[in-house]
Amino acid sequence: MPATTIKMIANKLSLSVATVSKSLADSHEISKETKLLVLNAARDMGYVANPYASSLRKGRSKTIAIVLPEIADSFFAEAINGIEEVALSHGYHVLIYLSHESLPREQAIMQDFKSGRVDGILMSVSEETSNVEHIKAVMDSKIPVVFFDRVCEDLNTTCVVTDDFDSSLQATNYLVSKSCKKIAFVGNSVNLSINRNRVNGYVSALQQNGLQQQQNVVICGKNQEESYEIISNLFKSDQKPDGIILSVEKLTAVLYKVCADLHINIPDQLKVLTFTNFNMAQFMSPSLTTIKQPAFNMGKTAATILLKKLSHTMAFSEPDTIILPSEIIFRNSTSE
Amino acid sequence: MPATTIKMIANKLSLSVATVSKSLADSHEISKETKLLVLNAARDMGYVANPYASSLRKGRSKTIAIVLPEIADSFFAEAINGIEEVALSHGYHVLIYLSHESLPREQAIMQDFKSGRVDGILMSVSEETSNVEHIKAVMDSKIPVVFFDRVCEDLNTTCVVTDDFDSSLQATNYLVSKSCKKIAFVGNSVNLSINRNRVNGYVSALQQNGLQQQQNVVICGKNQEESYEIISNLFKSDQKPDGIILSVEKLTAVLYKVCADLHINIPDQLKVLTFTNFNMAQFMSPSLTTIKQPAFNMGKTAATILLKKLSHTMAFSEPDTIILPSEIIFRNSTSE
Repeated sequence: MPATTIKMIANKLSLSVATVSKSLADSHEISKETKLLVLNAARDMGYVANPYASSLRKGRSKTIAIVLPEIADSFFAEAINGIEEVALSHGYHVLIYLSHESLPREQAIMQDFKSGRVDGILMSVSEETSNVEHIKAVMDSKIPVVFFDRVCEDLNTTCVVTDDFDSSLQATNYLVSKSCKKIAFVGNSVNLSINRNRVNGYVSALQQNGLQQQQNVVICGKNQEESYEIISNLFKSDQKPDGIILSVEKLTAVLYKVCADLHINIPDQLKVLTFTNFNMAQFMSPSLTTIKQPAFNMGKTAATILLKKLSHTMAFSEPDTIILPSEIIFRNSTSE
Repeated sequence: MPATTIKMIANKLSLSVATVSKSLADSHEISKETKLLVLNAARDMGYVANPYASSLRKGRSKTIAIVLPEIADSFFAEAINGIEEVALSHGYHVLIYLSHESLPREQAIMQDFKSGRVDGILMSVSEETSNVEHIKAVMDSKIPVVFFDRVCEDLNTTCVVTDDFDSSLQATNYLVSKSCKKIAFVGNSVNLSINRNRVNGYVSALQQNGLQQQQNVVICGKNQEESYEIISNLFKSDQKPDGIILSVEKLTAVLYKVCADLHINIPDQLKVLTFTNFNMAQFMSPSLTTIKQPAFNMGKTAATILLKKLSHTMAFSEPDTIILPSEIIFRNSTSE
């Protein structure tokens, strides 16, 4: 099958090649309706822009990078799909880099970008990212960076996040309404603003309900084994919880395993709620109550903003935070 | 925290800088034991090679690409971790490209590699990849390609696979031993050799058991909704199965949903078994019997071979297939 060309799209839609080309470049000369028509046809016909042609014209690589802590997480998988939908329809290649939650690795990746390998960067920082000099250095070399989910609020650029404080507050209130008295919050880092926001939401809800004495924030280990130890010990301590909020998807399997091994019944003895976009949540035993983040839309929004910065229709560096709402989906792990 | 340097590793281990440097470059002058010592220290200290320094010396980009159909699948997530373990310890950057199961997109990605952006490629092909000219063209430009999991057997290079025929044969025999008479095989493509091998294993087992009349291979749709329709219709047809082998992880949620909606009890009315590395399988309702592939080792092996080809300690193009065994993990979805 030959690759789809702009001409093939033009023929199919009975439009001129120039109109299709301008639509794909998101030109202001073309109406919204026509752009949508062209983008849909381009997607259906498997159109991929030839990066060389446009890169030669514009002196750019027509490539954007996504820098992520890990990919074995359904939030990031969905966010990537949202980013790629926007990027590919504008003829951009997408490269994915993994920091594996390591600051030195993230620094090496950012160092690599100074060579001009990519035009712009979408980024969710590692657990260890407490200083941001390596990110600032890339921004200083005029490569725009847009953050999503795990953001650095101190840098002058756009951040796309979800309402972590509010979701966590609501989740905690919900557990209180289900008669939980000792609610633990289990996460994986205190460096990240996303975790601070979630912890703050949890603490506020405890205060509202006069439960501040029961505050119990647990930080898990680097791997499954360490996390298993930490969570088991929680149940063997005086602080034995009757409700848990998990801030990270991968801790769910660990917690369910601890409960199976220690014969703790969910939801009778422990109510559980996880921040996750995990599509198997409804088929777990028991089915899992989740805080579902708008992962796809967060990716899409972040990519749209990055492309606007690249086409200079939006300021390169202006602090701005876009908040998209999460949704709590109630299932059996928190039922009475 | 300053980035870890070769000197810091040398100091820590009381070795010379030259020894550490040669160890990291996998030089034959250094003993296996010393290399292991250095690699472990480098990993623990978060060492990342500076790609510029070595790239300037050798005229290479010190970057390898992973080309994958998708990442929302635990097999690929684990395989990537295996690849990165090897690549990063040898000072290589890793870029991940997604084809989203589209041949035109895969072609555009391969086209991009001709610019010399990467030194070598690890690849698992898309569902649509029936012709391989775009891959051959990259190999012809002297960039080595090593396949893993979804391989192209017609090209002269190394393929790292698992024993798809045998696992599928064993899985089918197991369902027969559990009194299943009408076993369906549900996959997502017939283009791929991996699927042909699995289908052939399934068909052989049916023949061995005199059940060849009941052969029922179902190909699912491009998205969850289409797959839901196809699987529902299967249960409304004359061919209503009492056992199912799912060849793709993401079909599990779809099948469990169909069964919930149509009030089909797993395992009483239907026994289910999936090819997946999904770590929540044991906590599903009912817990899922899985064929677990050696994903991490497949990634590690493929990366090791690619690096050998890059360092010319292994022939660039010689057909070879390395088979690593999978393992069936029996759980309640196939119990009697």
